[in-house]
Amino acid sequence: MITLKTVQETREITESWIKQGLKIGFVPTMGCLHDGHVSLIKRARSENDKVVVSIFVNPIQFGPNEDFERYPRDLGRDCLICEKTEADLVFAPSVDEMFPCHNLAFVDIKELGDYLCGAKRPGHFRGVCTIVSKFFNIIRPDRAYFGEKDFQQLAIIQQMTLGLSFSTQIVACPTVRESDGLALSSRNSYLSDVERRAARVIPKSLDLARNALAGGERDATTLKNIIIQKVATEPLAMVDYIEVVDATLLKPIPRIDRPAIVAVAVFIGETRLIDHFLIEEGF
Amino acid sequence: MITLKTVQETREITESWIKQGLKIGFVPTMGCLHDGHVSLIKRARSENDKVVVSIFVNPIQFGPNEDFERYPRDLGRDCLICEKTEADLVFAPSVDEMFPCHNLAFVDIKELGDYLCGAKRPGHFRGVCTIVSKFFNIIRPDRAYFGEKDFQQLAIIQQMTLGLSFSTQIVACPTVRESDGLALSSRNSYLSDVERRAARVIPKSLDLARNALAGGERDATTLKNIIIQKVATEPLAMVDYIEVVDATLLKPIPRIDRPAIVAVAVFIGETRLIDHFLIEEGF
Repeated sequence: MITLKTVQETREITESWIKQGLKIGFVPTMGCLHDGHVSLIKRARSENDKVVVSIFVNPIQFGPNEDFERYPRDLGRDCLICEKTEADLVFAPSVDEMFPCHNLAFVDIKELGDYLCGAKRPGHFRGVCTIVSKFFNIIRPDRAYFGEKDFQQLAIIQQMTLGLSFSTQIVACPTVRESDGLALSSRNSYLSDVERRAARVIPKSLDLARNALAGGERDATTLKNIIIQKVATEPLAMVDYIEVVDATLLKPIPRIDRPAIVAVAVFIGETRLIDHFLIEEGF
Repeated sequence: MITLKTVQETREITESWIKQGLKIGFVPTMGCLHDGHVSLIKRARSENDKVVVSIFVNPIQFGPNEDFERYPRDLGRDCLICEKTEADLVFAPSVDEMFPCHNLAFVDIKELGDYLCGAKRPGHFRGVCTIVSKFFNIIRPDRAYFGEKDFQQLAIIQQMTLGLSFSTQIVACPTVRESDGLALSSRNSYLSDVERRAARVIPKSLDLARNALAGGERDATTLKNIIIQKVATEPLAMVDYIEVVDATLLKPIPRIDRPAIVAVAVFIGETRLIDHFLIEEGF
């Protein structure tokens, strides 16, 4: 496995692979890799000739009061995981390497970012789209792998890829969970033991909503209240948002009468965690 | 020479060229080709193994009250010119081919579009950046050729290419002019004979400002007034803007104390034409 820090060297290697007709799978990450990332890398490994993992904590997708500075970084450990998962190339540039001068160019998406995390984190998805575009232009992957856990990001990246005529195929990979149901996230590492136990309330509250749905409940407000009431039982938890949105347009809907997503963002202490479940056609 | 209308076929050909190690030069146009375009294609021809010309009147760079509908289109004539200039591939997609569904993704630039045409044509440069990004992603050119006549577009494309880490090199080509000084533009074809004669006032007014500059004048307002007064002598001409801007940041400056651009947009009848001259370091 090669680890590179410069755009130029990475471009040269991926260009040589392309000229050899090799297919490139790409897994963009902010490091602090967990089993969710590992599942993406394994999937990429099984579907491509070469696998590139980027490790870059992207400053432009963090708001001014967010956790850019304290976001966990451990490149040594991440590279070991990539090596074990048989990645071919880790691209781990510095912020100066990716943004050598005041950056005026950006990529963004209309509409899909209007609600959910897009509403709560202004500029976040612009930062994501811009950095993913840059990585696509440097690496030129045939396929790129994103977790379904960040479903709004996934939908936006799919829209961006189509809309800007990238040739990269976006591959969605299922959320990986702990045994108690908590979705894996690098931010879970912020949680103290007490907070970690408190965080169980997130998947549990979603389970309650799913049960109500199975029992025939279709009203979005009722489903949201079930979640709110459950989260309220946990003193360390505070709701950031709970939304029921159309699964395609990601706009709030009052009733479950089409494919939909029930999505939450909850603060556990200082740590903001997101989770959701999908209600498919013919639920 | 091949003429293609689909993204898929164009991608396949350019990908096969890339795998063969061939260098691709790209000339994006809206058709209605004139000697300015020809100079771009010839330059691309001399510097690359393969030359791609796109011919596409891009709807998203026109404002609601602009000339998208009446913009001149003559694909047959354009293809003859491309063939004669030894292009290898003309990519001439339909609007539906480039925008098969409601497009939510866009590329834009901050600051460089705040003045000049950017201020007068809201959304114009966003439309330009988005379509050029799409073409870059489809064609993956090594070099792309743009005329200096549209200097704000050129600066914005250069900024976009750097900022989004495109590997394409942007090549700037000099403005081509008629013998009476009028800069070539596809929009010149809108002009009646009377209007065509009236349009001479544009390069003439710039010449007067250049002469004043050579005579020591450094005040931006004085230079602008010289142009305004000259244009006012032509009843068919109406100033849209006259600006003196910093040559790097494209922001208005009160005095010529650094490299600068004197830029005008003038309506001749219904037809809006632009022109400028550059004041280099050590003028």
